[in-house]
This record gives sequence, structure tokens and C-alpha cells, in this order.
Amino acid sequence: MIVEHAEINVTPGREDEFVAAFPQARAVLSQADGFRWAELHRGVERTSTFLLLVGWDTLAAHVDGFRSSDLFVQWRAIIGPFFAEPPRVEHYAAVTAGVRPVEA
Amino acid sequence: MIVEHAEINVTPGREDEFVAAFPQARAVLSQADGFRWAELHRGVERTSTFLLLVGWDTLAAHVDGFRSSDLFVQWRAIIGPFFAEPPRVEHYAAVTAGVRPVEA
Repeated sequence: MIVEHAEINVTPGREDEFVAAFPQARAVLSQADGFRWAELHRGVERTSTFLLLVGWDTLAAHVDGFRSSDLFVQWRAIIGPFFAEPPRVEHYAAVTAGVRPVEA
Repeated sequence: MIVEHAEINVTPGREDEFVAAFPQARAVLSQADGFRWAELHRGVERTSTFLLLVGWDTLAAHVDGFRSSDLFVQWRAIIGPFFAEPPRVEHYAAVTAGVRPVEA
């Protein structure tokens, strides 16, 4: 399992719109091959910065699969308008596992 | 719930030692008041960079509580020697919730 780590800087003042649009965007994202889960977090110190974490089966599922798909176009059409700049994306592999409960 | 987001750059060549020491460090961290969970991930693009995510009941549990405690001293004694530089720490609040399964 690979975690996509995207730091998204939203145009200041449009944070609430971004949050409101996210469920629709996630519904698109979740149709991608190899998608496992997605979480969105909002910065405490930088309140226009959001952290999107997406679990994928493999790196290729994200980089080669999703990004080349029509789903990516749909995804960006929904939430891209709120981006102040291109997201900073990296990937991580879990070292620990099974340690995190699902939050209510 | 608040997520501590720490980007840890480990001294190149000491990554395996850092990973081996982490369970002992987590055992200390998990004794802190307000601690919920901790996850460690390793960078795919930057392989000496680790992402530590820690769930806390509140921001204060981390910033005022843990960091002022003897547990913090113990924690840093265990894993601090592997840090190439001070970790970059920020905090996030979950926007989505309950979406992430525990990985096997």
C-alpha cells in the first residue's frame, strides 16, 4: 500500500467551498482502480492549507493509472478551481501498520 | 482530534536504525496523555524522509502536554540521534472522518 501525500494550498477565502466540493470529488476518486481510501485534513497553523492522504494499492495505480484517466480530469474539474497553486504531491510507504483506529 | 504531522529527515545511511528504534520510541509516546495513535511512513521519492502522523485528543495535549513532559525527553533520546535536522512539525484537523480502514 502506498500513501499519496498532497499538500493543497487553497485560495484564501475559498476554503469552505473547497471543503463543500470535496465529497463529490472523492466520489470520483474512489472509482479509480487501486483506490483504497482518502482523508482530508485542514491545517491548524496554515488554515488555507489542506492535507489530502490517499491510499493506493501501488504507486502505479496513482501515477500511471489515475492520472492518465478521465476520472482525473473529472476530479480536477471539481476541486481544481479552488487551488491557489499546483498541489505538492509525494508518496510514502507505511512502515508501521494496523495501528490506527477509524475515527468516529 | 488533531493530527500532528512531522516530516523527519533522517541522516542518510541511518534509515534502518531509525526504523528499528521507532517501536521503542512509540511505546514512550503512547504513554502521553491525549495520545491516540501513531503511524510512520517512509518517502518513496525522498527515501531518507519519514512522515510521522500522531493523533492527539487536542492540540494542547501535544504542544503543552507531551512536549513539556519527561516522556518527550525519553522519546527524543531514542530517535533524536537519527535526525539529520529538527523535524518540521505542523498540525491538522480532520475534515473527513471515519473513511480509513485499518491496514492489515
